[in-house]
Amino acid sequence: MRFDLVVLGGGPGGVDCALEAAALGLSTALVERAELGGTCLNRGCIPTKLFLGATDCVHAMHAQARLRLLSGDIRVDLEALQKRKGQMLAGSRKAIEKQLADAGVALLRGQGTVRSAAELEVDTDQGPVAVEFGRLVVATGSRPTAFPGMEPDGDRVLDSDAALELTRAPASLLIVGGGTIGLELGRFFARLGAAITVVEAQDRLAPWEDAEVSATIAALCKREKWTLHLGGRVKSLRTEGGAALLELESGQTLGAELALVATGRGPNTAGIGLEAAGVRLGRGGFAEVDAFLLAAPTVAVIGDANGKAMLAHAAAHQGRYAARHAAGREQAPYACGPMPWCIYGAPETLRVGRMVSELLAQGLEPRVGTAQLAANPIAQSHASAQGFVKVVWLDGRVAGITAVGHGVAHLVTAATVIVRDGWTREDAQALVWAHPTLDEALHHALSAGPVPARS
Amino acid sequence: MRFDLVVLGGGPGGVDCALEAAALGLSTALVERAELGGTCLNRGCIPTKLFLGATDCVHAMHAQARLRLLSGDIRVDLEALQKRKGQMLAGSRKAIEKQLADAGVALLRGQGTVRSAAELEVDTDQGPVAVEFGRLVVATGSRPTAFPGMEPDGDRVLDSDAALELTRAPASLLIVGGGTIGLELGRFFARLGAAITVVEAQDRLAPWEDAEVSATIAALCKREKWTLHLGGRVKSLRTEGGAALLELESGQTLGAELALVATGRGPNTAGIGLEAAGVRLGRGGFAEVDAFLLAAPTVAVIGDANGKAMLAHAAAHQGRYAARHAAGREQAPYACGPMPWCIYGAPETLRVGRMVSELLAQGLEPRVGTAQLAANPIAQSHASAQGFVKVVWLDGRVAGITAVGHGVAHLVTAATVIVRDGWTREDAQALVWAHPTLDEALHHALSAGPVPARS
Repeated sequence: MRFDLVVLGGGPGGVDCALEAAALGLSTALVERAELGGTCLNRGCIPTKLFLGATDCVHAMHAQARLRLLSGDIRVDLEALQKRKGQMLAGSRKAIEKQLADAGVALLRGQGTVRSAAELEVDTDQGPVAVEFGRLVVATGSRPTAFPGMEPDGDRVLDSDAALELTRAPASLLIVGGGTIGLELGRFFARLGAAITVVEAQDRLAPWEDAEVSATIAALCKREKWTLHLGGRVKSLRTEGGAALLELESGQTLGAELALVATGRGPNTAGIGLEAAGVRLGRGGFAEVDAFLLAAPTVAVIGDANGKAMLAHAAAHQGRYAARHAAGREQAPYACGPMPWCIYGAPETLRVGRMVSELLAQGLEPRVGTAQLAANPIAQSHASAQGFVKVVWLDGRVAGITAVGHGVAHLVTAATVIVRDGWTREDAQALVWAHPTLDEALHHALSAGPVPARS
Repeated sequence: MRFDLVVLGGGPGGVDCALEAAALGLSTALVERAELGGTCLNRGCIPTKLFLGATDCVHAMHAQARLRLLSGDIRVDLEALQKRKGQMLAGSRKAIEKQLADAGVALLRGQGTVRSAAELEVDTDQGPVAVEFGRLVVATGSRPTAFPGMEPDGDRVLDSDAALELTRAPASLLIVGGGTIGLELGRFFARLGAAITVVEAQDRLAPWEDAEVSATIAALCKREKWTLHLGGRVKSLRTEGGAALLELESGQTLGAELALVATGRGPNTAGIGLEAAGVRLGRGGFAEVDAFLLAAPTVAVIGDANGKAMLAHAAAHQGRYAARHAAGREQAPYACGPMPWCIYGAPETLRVGRMVSELLAQGLEPRVGTAQLAANPIAQSHASAQGFVKVVWLDGRVAGITAVGHGVAHLVTAATVIVRDGWTREDAQALVWAHPTLDEALHHALSAGPVPARS
């Protein structure tokens, strides 16, 4: 069989690519060896957000209880939550399958292996099937990775895939890696009563964020009694005596009922024959792509597999571009505009556009305007007044926005538009900002007289 | 004493007007007889949002408990909440006072009475003071009103001012008026255990909203066991035998521990000498203003007192315009662009721009694109999947957006920008929408193939 466009991998990038391609009139197939929806739906953002959303009230109650406005207790039934997760994900997978079918995309179930620049083989239940393509879009995503000496053993040392399947919360959880996955899952298990310890090799949490954002996250983690080992380098992590045992290079040992290794993710690019199509793998195994997301004349690689931005919405955006490019509807190089990044839970973070450190490194002279959430009535009402919104200005226009604190991820779409369109101060003043909203903190940060940024 | 600009009333409209005027170099005074911050801060949006924010976890827990994912109970200490409210409001009033002082605005405390088109008298603690002005900006706001036969008596029949001061929640609460105030306070007292009954004279709740929005609010109220009397006309409401007793014109009687009259608000325009400056009061006592918000050559009237849009952010926007106009910096008629309206709590509503019914009435042919929240993972995770986002299109551009459901007020700034800028479908596709967010429901509504609107 032959298709104009074949997508390898049914995660958010692959599905959006296939739907767009079919909508543009290309004969399209999507190859998926396991579950539709990829990591995001099945073992990533969606289950994590379900868990955080369902237990939001636990965090919110504790925040109010600290002010003695409320009292009470909430028990979370993790088994029931897992069951609900299963139902939700099954429903979503079914919806994706129906969407693909309605759009006329052929769904080929089985492991796909690239044979040449024009053909791949799909190992279906009915045996191997040869599939020819005009354009192949590789959207095979990523998987959790670990450094040597701390590989998950499936006993007391888990990766995020396994942690998301737990039906009983540990009394104590040791998290290696203070990034998005570690922070979000740490918050969830803390709400279930787990004592949390985080070991992060760098000297701050979420080290790619604005330094003040990292500092605020750390302050709030400490307020919730988390133990932080920043700059802590792991020598070994293993199951011993029915518990997780971690040894730091400093010689200190840490123990917990369970450990979660959340040190990063690596691309699923090995063992699927990409070489046969002329694809080259670079550092960390990510496929090397050109300005059109092409890794070879007939092969595009999108999403986590190219490592440009390991986010579901980045993959989806690249997927739609790859379809339009394959259909000849798009000649310009891929450009995504400002890419929003969030960490969910409490506190949340938001980042879009260029950050102070990046601009200073380029010899530019950014200015910043900041609004503290302490002055915002919505943050106050949620007893969560720690945090801020920071606007980064360059030549009188907004170049970036970052924020940390209660619910700031809600500002993401407005912030993305403001950065993309490079608002001036006057643009911000011209808009009517609804009152009282968290959004007013963004308005205040836009209105604050910006000062020269130092670091 | 004489000032270029004198503001009468220290609510959000008056304060923003005074700050803008001072920033533009006008000598400025602000006259306030009672508390800075006006209704919004002291007896309106801010205390209501504090109460709703603080008890959000009660609602959230019940939503999850219905799915049997959680169990527990939460007790709210209303006395402690009132104390916290007092502290918060006092802090905010102090902050406003400091802001005015820092800006060089003279704060005159006392009742102001207009004497002529160039002078008012302020009845201060030290006796009456004559104040001359070049421009007077009247920002006296509004107060709760009631129809004859249902006036609050301060015993068992209360207005919203009194309801916001309660230190003990009633076991049952009868609310007359199914608008913003009734719905928001009803939600709060329901979370404290009150059985809620709403009597609304029109045939739906929040009758100015899109009809489907009203229907969804009603469905969700019923799910929470509220009793609704839509199209219920009140004959009388009074305290009798230590309880509130309401008689409908139909003859039916309703009783409750307390009643809240939330039938609307009227302007504070009587008895302050506005006639002496040539101001004319129109229907309902609202001051009549021209396209420049002028009610007389030297007098502007802004905010609730002119009744154009009884919202704090509308008043503030008008106040800043009035200052710029007085300073000669603005010659064009007042234009606010699309004005966002929200109802907070759960469910929330959002409305900005033009609605279907309005466009149909003008003989236009709007189209609508809708996304159900049931398909949104964030709404799902909050066990609050009822509701939708609806985009109203006119000639290929977004003319309005409305929504109802979990947290939809969070979409307000993005929606305001999209309506103001009249986005096309392509504009919506070009943006990277963060995943997973509630905002994606807005994206889906923008992407949905719009269909002709019928009603």
